[in-house]
Amino acid sequence: MNSKRASRRRFLKNGAALASLTVGALRSASGQTPGPETPAAVPKGYQPYGQRSHFESSTRTTFHAEGTPPPGVAPFQSWPAVFNPLQDSVGIITPSSLHYVVSTGSVPPDIDPRQHRLLIHGMVDRPLIFTLEELKRLPFVTRIHFLECAGDGSPNVLLTNKGEGPIIQRVMGFTSCSEWTGVLLSLLLREAGVQTGAKWISAEGAETAKHAKSIPLDKAMDDVIVAYGQNGEAVRPDNGYPLRLLVPGWEGINNVKWLRRIQVMDQPPMHSRETNGYNSPRADGSKRWFQFQMGPKSIITFPSDAHRLPGPGFYQIKGLAWSGAGAVRRVEVSTDGGRTWNDAEFQGPVLPKAHSRFRLDWNWNGEETLIQSRCTDDQGVMQPTLAEFGKLRGVDVRVPPPNVSNHFNPIHSWKVARDGSVQYGLFS
Amino acid sequence: MNSKRASRRRFLKNGAALASLTVGALRSASGQTPGPETPAAVPKGYQPYGQRSHFESSTRTTFHAEGTPPPGVAPFQSWPAVFNPLQDSVGIITPSSLHYVVSTGSVPPDIDPRQHRLLIHGMVDRPLIFTLEELKRLPFVTRIHFLECAGDGSPNVLLTNKGEGPIIQRVMGFTSCSEWTGVLLSLLLREAGVQTGAKWISAEGAETAKHAKSIPLDKAMDDVIVAYGQNGEAVRPDNGYPLRLLVPGWEGINNVKWLRRIQVMDQPPMHSRETNGYNSPRADGSKRWFQFQMGPKSIITFPSDAHRLPGPGFYQIKGLAWSGAGAVRRVEVSTDGGRTWNDAEFQGPVLPKAHSRFRLDWNWNGEETLIQSRCTDDQGVMQPTLAEFGKLRGVDVRVPPPNVSNHFNPIHSWKVARDGSVQYGLFS
Repeated sequence: MNSKRASRRRFLKNGAALASLTVGALRSASGQTPGPETPAAVPKGYQPYGQRSHFESSTRTTFHAEGTPPPGVAPFQSWPAVFNPLQDSVGIITPSSLHYVVSTGSVPPDIDPRQHRLLIHGMVDRPLIFTLEELKRLPFVTRIHFLECAGDGSPNVLLTNKGEGPIIQRVMGFTSCSEWTGVLLSLLLREAGVQTGAKWISAEGAETAKHAKSIPLDKAMDDVIVAYGQNGEAVRPDNGYPLRLLVPGWEGINNVKWLRRIQVMDQPPMHSRETNGYNSPRADGSKRWFQFQMGPKSIITFPSDAHRLPGPGFYQIKGLAWSGAGAVRRVEVSTDGGRTWNDAEFQGPVLPKAHSRFRLDWNWNGEETLIQSRCTDDQGVMQPTLAEFGKLRGVDVRVPPPNVSNHFNPIHSWKVARDGSVQYGLFS
Repeated sequence: MNSKRASRRRFLKNGAALASLTVGALRSASGQTPGPETPAAVPKGYQPYGQRSHFESSTRTTFHAEGTPPPGVAPFQSWPAVFNPLQDSVGIITPSSLHYVVSTGSVPPDIDPRQHRLLIHGMVDRPLIFTLEELKRLPFVTRIHFLECAGDGSPNVLLTNKGEGPIIQRVMGFTSCSEWTGVLLSLLLREAGVQTGAKWISAEGAETAKHAKSIPLDKAMDDVIVAYGQNGEAVRPDNGYPLRLLVPGWEGINNVKWLRRIQVMDQPPMHSRETNGYNSPRADGSKRWFQFQMGPKSIITFPSDAHRLPGPGFYQIKGLAWSGAGAVRRVEVSTDGGRTWNDAEFQGPVLPKAHSRFRLDWNWNGEETLIQSRCTDDQGVMQPTLAEFGKLRGVDVRVPPPNVSNHFNPIHSWKVARDGSVQYGLFS
């Protein structure tokens, strides 16, 4: 799809000066840029790098896959992982300090950004090596996108871990949304010159476990970002510092952290994560490999099991919706167990492949009820009911919980009891 | 403008259940909401509340007004203040830890959010007191807005403080941009029932110095937010935890932090900050009081004096633009000292009264030059040149630096030298 000639034409359009960006021709800025000055003494109470109030205690809780799963439910793989405390979320941006983490068996490597390199090789005309400083000289993009683990919201995640803290974190805490800044991978691949016959890339991280993932070249040439910035500063260590792949709308596992190598290939190399896991059973008993796109999904973040309504009266239901296909077009909320639905209002920008914040006024009469949200994306796809999901995926949902590890996106429910307490309602 | 009856009609439109939000009728949720659980042990390398890499050292630098100002330049008031390190910024969101702070002589008070109250009184039918929990039950808004000190960019700020760190922080480091979440002040004022004849509000903070500021009622009823959320979590202590006023597009001084009281009045009470400072000399020698709206403005954040270009070749110029009047419509960049201008591209959403990120490809030929940016907002107003600014404000700019403390928004320049070093160029 990207012959040497086509790539070169495209490249020249971007400005001939970029031609200097081949290995060896690059002049590294590393070590020549003046480093930050020694932080000055700051007035009492003013920190050079500020902290939150000591009264704030919202924290990520840990995933433990040590529980005994219910009969028929496979345990979710036990990796180091922490959940985003959605019950405390406001807006669409997840604070970097509270971003969910699902990792690949390794602790985050302690990478010196001056030593880090990104290699692009394989079926390319010109293999390239970039320093961080070199990447930061290139045309950047800044985009707000969600990230989500394929298992987020699945019964197997929810029911096979012990779970400290509110259940909402385990219900949907493997999703977060950040403002990402970096270089489009397509720019780097065009500069390297993708050869005829190339169909895939394989991206690899620098952590001990060397997680690697295959991604179709079409996506790599579309909106994938080699990201060095997150929410206005450097990507955090547990999110891939100093460099990660950001694959908008696709399963978290594609978003390779601590990115050090991209190989252009004609076949996917079938890495362990794309063969042993991350597949979905089909109705005919076979399994679907290489599924990528997340959602459409939504979750009510208030009220949830982390909250207790003090009594009947006015509340505003708050939540998040997103879709890997594009922007969220509509969110509907039911406060009567799905009999009637009302259009929620959006707050903040509604952006493609980003969390969108919704709200709905609600007068609670004090009776027990189920509250639910459903998302429709700009492709017209709506979140299914549990029954519809079962049909789509060939899963028997008559005896919950269904044995589903990935891409579980039916409508979730919170059951509000007369005493104002709230329970997860989908499997109750 | 808001008679009791009009207010009531408006209010009923928003849902009759809101009628319960009068003092006494409110049932406080405080103490009834389950607190966050004790943080669980997390896997090695995974923090309940994450931190940045120890290799990252970008910090806010301190404002010192101890320098001797040049002849004719009044010293800027010396308050505890820290500058946003713009030279390291990416995207449009300022990390809360790096948000600029200009304060009012007090250290941030250590406020227990369970004890904090907001009082609305004065020319209202129903004085109201809100707890944080009560405010969080109300319809919220989430909006991305910049905040900026009136003195940001002014010669008096830049030239009357000693200034550790890169000069770019002093040139324009009193601006930041966050995603704010809270309740529209108009909702609270309508519920209180603003009386006929009311024209102003006075907002007061809970810090030792009890900073207070008058704001016209028209603005208060428009887009002012009583904010409890910043970038997805609670407002930070140095930004007003647990509650601040957010007055979009207006001088920072209006955005009262640690907000505890709003009084509705027929006259502005002429607080010290609106009489002693925050005025601008007119051509006729009089001073303009009660100026509010910021911008249009822009600043090139790369390259700046914090950077050194390693040699001729390709660079991407990066910067931020904003206007208190609305959205940025256009940013132009000159790389030849203002002889020719090129349209920059935007990255990230371009939102009203928010920082907008721009970029422009640049092939530096290695010669000394001035690089500049100019912003045009959606009202068609363009940043003036220094000479145009002088005419507009009746300031003699023939002998720089001009004596201007506030609302200084001419086009700024960086001078790139042959050795790749960069200096602030406006007054050189």
